[in-house]
Amino acid sequence: MAIELWWGSGSPYAWRVLLALELKRLPYVSHLLQFSKQEHKSPHMLSLNPRGRVPVLKDGDYVCFESLAILYYLDLKYPQPALFGRSPEEAGTIMRVICEYQAYIEPHVTRITRAVFFGDADLAGDEVTAAMHALASEARTIEGRLSKSEWIVGDACSAVDLVIFPGIQLVKRALERPQAKALWSRFMPVEVNYPALARWLARVAALPGYERTYPPHWRS
Amino acid sequence: MAIELWWGSGSPYAWRVLLALELKRLPYVSHLLQFSKQEHKSPHMLSLNPRGRVPVLKDGDYVCFESLAILYYLDLKYPQPALFGRSPEEAGTIMRVICEYQAYIEPHVTRITRAVFFGDADLAGDEVTAAMHALASEARTIEGRLSKSEWIVGDACSAVDLVIFPGIQLVKRALERPQAKALWSRFMPVEVNYPALARWLARVAALPGYERTYPPHWRS
Repeated sequence: MAIELWWGSGSPYAWRVLLALELKRLPYVSHLLQFSKQEHKSPHMLSLNPRGRVPVLKDGDYVCFESLAILYYLDLKYPQPALFGRSPEEAGTIMRVICEYQAYIEPHVTRITRAVFFGDADLAGDEVTAAMHALASEARTIEGRLSKSEWIVGDACSAVDLVIFPGIQLVKRALERPQAKALWSRFMPVEVNYPALARWLARVAALPGYERTYPPHWRS
Repeated sequence: MAIELWWGSGSPYAWRVLLALELKRLPYVSHLLQFSKQEHKSPHMLSLNPRGRVPVLKDGDYVCFESLAILYYLDLKYPQPALFGRSPEEAGTIMRVICEYQAYIEPHVTRITRAVFFGDADLAGDEVTAAMHALASEARTIEGRLSKSEWIVGDACSAVDLVIFPGIQLVKRALERPQAKALWSRFMPVEVNYPALARWLARVAALPGYERTYPPHWRS
């Protein structure tokens, strides 16, 4: 039975899984849900994930959700190419940088992007200012890694690249909005402020199948 | 070369790693740091983890931090007994429930325990009330799992048990404080409100080596 994936356009969590499926060249049935129609909260979706969140992956009878868990499952089930390294040490470092991203960067990405897209915080307020400052500082650390290596950990694209990439793309998109004009120059243009990071973004975007993972509603 | 672990008494993150080392019966050199003396921010500790956080594990020349990453590394390096399951499906579900804990439970645990121990939020305010409500709801889900199985996922103690156990212990300890009296009955006594969860807490506490993992300053 085929792999099925339920996802939503622009969800950074779903994007990670799409990138992994393409990188591993796994065939899958794509179910693109409309958040605006609450399709991710339908009875069928709630039967798969009671939290009503995407991505949800089904492989035969097995159902998995939470993006990191899906990446982990896929890597154990379909090991080539490896997403979690080729030694315990490399795997530990990949997981460490993923955990650091989730603990110390993702909350700031969420604060900034929600403030821009949903207006749920003052873009000139202390909270968003602090988030921009923290993001810039963490981006410098990643820039340091990427100035020495093509991928964030090790010498191949790994789960950590797939975890971080959609978050950076989402921030970039948010900062291009007119209402975010005053924040723009604190991070952008990425090519000038973080040249190694910009080259890495282009490297991920050149992966096979990337076009199929790009959020459809971002094209319009 | 021996495994070395730097940790702090009462850190739920460090506790996870101590439990894993004991479960795998790995010998290790224990470095108990005093948070009150800022020993986790010493130049030596910052050279191991620039964020100045514990736990930090060193195995030969390899340094790892972030508790989940350390569990993952240890399991790949020293596979018996397995912490991340025995099939891709079981591993995926273990990681899924860990991710759910981190995303949907841990923030509430942190809010409640910080409010009690550090007084940084009003214990009668909306924020702590909402956190208690969410915690109770999530605890019912875990109670449901544990009423059907001895361990949270699968038929053996896994990484998900080690990740969640210290958080629950920390909440229990916080709610026993006099200042938390009004919150107490919303979760406690665990034996009455969540009997399967209470039996599981006792099961973890009966694991070999458990006494060596118990926060030393909690005994006094």
